[in-house]
Amino acid sequence: MRIFFIGDIVGRIGRKAVKEILPDLQKKHGFDFVIANGENAAGGFGLTKLVAQELYSYGINCLTMGNHTWDNKDILNIIDEYAIVRPLNYNLGSPGSGWRIFAINNKKLAVVNFIGQVFMDNNSPFDKYEQEIANIKKESDLIVIDFHAEATGEKLAFAHYVTADVSCVVGTHTHIQTADEKIIEQQTAYITDLGMTGAVDSILGMSKTSVIERFRYQIPQRFKVARGLYQLEGLLVDINDTTGKAESVLRIHQTSLK
Amino acid sequence: MRIFFIGDIVGRIGRKAVKEILPDLQKKHGFDFVIANGENAAGGFGLTKLVAQELYSYGINCLTMGNHTWDNKDILNIIDEYAIVRPLNYNLGSPGSGWRIFAINNKKLAVVNFIGQVFMDNNSPFDKYEQEIANIKKESDLIVIDFHAEATGEKLAFAHYVTADVSCVVGTHTHIQTADEKIIEQQTAYITDLGMTGAVDSILGMSKTSVIERFRYQIPQRFKVARGLYQLEGLLVDINDTTGKAESVLRIHQTSLK
Amino acid sequence: MRIFFIGDIVGRIGRKAVKEILPDLQKKHGFDFVIANGENAAGGFGLTKLVAQELYSYGINCLTMGNHTWDNKDILNIIDEYAIVRPLNYNLGSPGSGWRIFAINNKKLAVVNFIGQVFMDNNSPFDKYEQEIANIKKESDLIVIDFHAEATGEKLAFAHYVTADVSCVVGTHTHIQTADEKIIEQQTAYITDLGMTGAVDSILGMSKTSVIERFRYQIPQRFKVARGLYQLEGLLVDINDTTGKAESVLRIHQTSLK
Amino acid sequence: MRIFFIGDIVGRIGRKAVKEILPDLQKKHGFDFVIANGENAAGGFGLTKLVAQELYSYGINCLTMGNHTWDNKDILNIIDEYAIVRPLNYNLGSPGSGWRIFAINNKKLAVVNFIGQVFMDNNSPFDKYEQEIANIKKESDLIVIDFHAEATGEKLAFAHYVTADVSCVVGTHTHIQTADEKIIEQQTAYITDLGMTGAVDSILGMSKTSVIERFRYQIPQRFKVARGLYQLEGLLVDINDTTGKAESVLRIHQTSLK
Ligand SMILES: [Fe+2]
Ligand SMILES: [Fe+2]
Ligand SMILES: [Fe+2]
Ligand SMILES: [Fe+2]
Ligand SMILES: [Fe+2]
Ligand SMILES: [Fe+2]
Ligand SMILES: [Fe+2]
Ligand SMILES: [Fe+2]
Repeated sequence: MRIFFIGDIVGRIGRKAVKEILPDLQKKHGFDFVIANGENAAGGFGLTKLVAQELYSYGINCLTMGNHTWDNKDILNIIDEYAIVRPLNYNLGSPGSGWRIFAINNKKLAVVNFIGQVFMDNNSPFDKYEQEIANIKKESDLIVIDFHAEATGEKLAFAHYVTADVSCVVGTHTHIQTADEKIIEQQTAYITDLGMTGAVDSILGMSKTSVIERFRYQIPQRFKVARGLYQLEGLLVDINDTTGKAESVLRIHQTSLK
Repeated sequence: MRIFFIGDIVGRIGRKAVKEILPDLQKKHGFDFVIANGENAAGGFGLTKLVAQELYSYGINCLTMGNHTWDNKDILNIIDEYAIVRPLNYNLGSPGSGWRIFAINNKKLAVVNFIGQVFMDNNSPFDKYEQEIANIKKESDLIVIDFHAEATGEKLAFAHYVTADVSCVVGTHTHIQTADEKIIEQQTAYITDLGMTGAVDSILGMSKTSVIERFRYQIPQRFKVARGLYQLEGLLVDINDTTGKAESVLRIHQTSLK
Repeated sequence: MRIFFIGDIVGRIGRKAVKEILPDLQKKHGFDFVIANGENAAGGFGLTKLVAQELYSYGINCLTMGNHTWDNKDILNIIDEYAIVRPLNYNLGSPGSGWRIFAINNKKLAVVNFIGQVFMDNNSPFDKYEQEIANIKKESDLIVIDFHAEATGEKLAFAHYVTADVSCVVGTHTHIQTADEKIIEQQTAYITDLGMTGAVDSILGMSKTSVIERFRYQIPQRFKVARGLYQLEGLLVDINDTTGKAESVLRIHQTSLK
Repeated sequence: MRIFFIGDIVGRIGRKAVKEILPDLQKKHGFDFVIANGENAAGGFGLTKLVAQELYSYGINCLTMGNHTWDNKDILNIIDEYAIVRPLNYNLGSPGSGWRIFAINNKKLAVVNFIGQVFMDNNSPFDKYEQEIANIKKESDLIVIDFHAEATGEKLAFAHYVTADVSCVVGTHTHIQTADEKIIEQQTAYITDLGMTGAVDSILGMSKTSVIERFRYQIPQRFKVARGLYQLEGLLVDINDTTGKAESVLRIHQTSLK
């Protein structure tokens, strides 16, 4: 199957990028399933029911999250109903679920979300993986992971750690696409970061002025989503439905400037 | 002038990558000056006199540093004599200097090194830039910066902050090359991270096993430099000597597999 | 002179503690000057004009700040007029000032505020001290410092570093009073943390439920100031006006339960 | 039963403090069991077989650990044989155990060790507590916890979270004794930090010069254990064997200067 992973969608303009660019990509590449990181989709901070509905209407099939999961409390109303996948290594009893099963091509695809520990004050993704992988395998034929993390070393180490059972590990969170897409040990598709879907003329999707001010004077302020031209970034992955091995990766960076 | 920036050189195999790959690149692209990040050049941790000599003999003209600057105390013997550039935003009275002037094409090129504050416990690079930029401008015709930092937002914000006076800001430290090379406001060449020069089959240049073990069991251990095939990563930048504006950027990822 | 330092005042109940307890302490101990950390005085987050006026009306002479300095933007209207002291090691060009001179007993007392670097992403207090101490000495007869920081090692090291010129270093920020008050090298009065002025039945002055919930489920929520019985915590320091040496310290922990 | 908890023992001089001071305290207070934090007992970094033997010979009955658990690999040889308690919220499969049962007064006392998550990159202690508390209760009559953590808020929140089942939570790690010993809800004895057992004239037990140098110039160096006069710090707790409720706490700070 061919899966398209989309990097963190930031605000209204990020959703516009999906609306305008995704259909063309679908036409050109014909993917079977679209997974997007939605932690910044609602005004840059979290996800709402309306925003999730909008993104699904554009052809996204599954939304994963990250450190901004709970920024907008409206997610609590939809996290189960809409099968949103939040980091699995959250504490026990957290709302929602860290993995969900989707049926594609008569296969059960598990989409799993992890969040990093380094710099991010979360439970070890390695430890939680050990605790949960047997359950996930029991319920699924294929497994893909959105690893939402800061540190490149943690992302790479995690991907190498899970190659035996996982078809694909895509990194999110830094909002900057990396140039290291590859297939690890002829099995697991990998990229350190998918990049960002939103305003081109921005800092990580946000208005440049406010971000620069904060670094310059260290005075807290709420960042605003930037405007103008937009981009969509992600990774296209082909997985062999039978072997579970990734067979090709294609990095996507598409702007409204085409 | 054409400047080639090389991403963090990791250990003996990273130096071999420079030795084997740099001459071909020089032949093909004909650059005027080569700047490399050397903070991991000596066994993965810091720099020594012998290692610096070796790197200069391969055609590198200037070495910049980062959070591993002081890992090997031998650097204290050569930091001034060899014009090594360590982060400018270190505390006052730190050995060495945060910028050095090099004469190229009858121009005085200032090579400046900054280190990030986010996740890294350092003085604000924005603040130190304000304190020092007038002095640097007085002594130089052109300014380029190696910004050694973790957080993508800090790197991008800094680059946008300095466009008026700086021809080029290249990020280092994450050891993963990003795919976002560009020229900001038609002035300042930029990439979030140059990437890494060292072993291909590794985690950031280090042996995979030890890094994975540490994440898995959280037991400290000294990482070893990996072996095998090697790569050299960097960015080629053309700067207009008269206007100081960057005119083109070319991302380089070259492996021993050619 | 006798100076009374009050630990972080948290919210309305913290201000009530000052109103109810400070007069008795004044009667009993007869101090010449009262310095309080006000970073949490307005609803737990920052300072406003009305809150500052209220605290001054209770006998506080000087307010210092910390990582919550800018939480309430109203401080920008009064930071200079009311001689509020914010961390000196903020970036250049930040509003307000990191030290202020007060006239007491015909002496010029410099009250200086620093913020920690460890775990807190600020400029090095050691570095900024080196840059500013000559200026402060030129304008003052005596110097006292509120060092607002997390790490005990950084606080102790800083106090030992400045003994030659400073009569007193009191730590703030952790909201838990330490039992290590002393006079370093017969010169500099010291305590790692003054403690907290506010609700007794609380976590650091905040409602227990919300804090526990956040640790338990990691879901962000705005903490509310706790209620009920209150406490005032601080340190009383006697400084020899002529030599500048601290001569005695007395730790204060007073509750409404007396 | 009467339990004496001793704060982090630092190096040879810390062990000497135990040797010289503990017998007097035993004579005076007559405790039934002595628990000490041993993470810095071997030269400031970790624990060895010889050091553990020495400490047991002085009357310590149980050693707990912290972020320095694995600094000295010799601990791997004795961690089970000597019933050393390392943080429970380490990753699955880590050597040793996070709780051990000791028989005292015909009661089974569970000694549990947790490490903080805030600033420390560990699994959530709250989460691990939920996963393990039922097992611990099944095997024990009484439970006491050494919570080795940096952030005061995390320590307090954790203590309030576990009151229903735990007789005592003592904080360690900051090496500075706090003045907030108390019994939470008439059940759980508590102190934010026990303090440090080692050299008086030091920074957290280490030589002042090296620590100050590191803050001043940010150049890494191995700290050395300080010398001279010594201190022992801790907390004495009386627990009702039948109800499991703490009934009294007494903070201990004893120096060789008596
Ligand atoms: Fe994001
Ligand atoms: Fe994120
Ligand atoms: Fe680095
Ligand atoms: Fe590096
Ligand atoms: Fe604070
Ligand atoms: Fe505070
Ligand atoms: Fe510790
Ligand atoms: Fe310790």
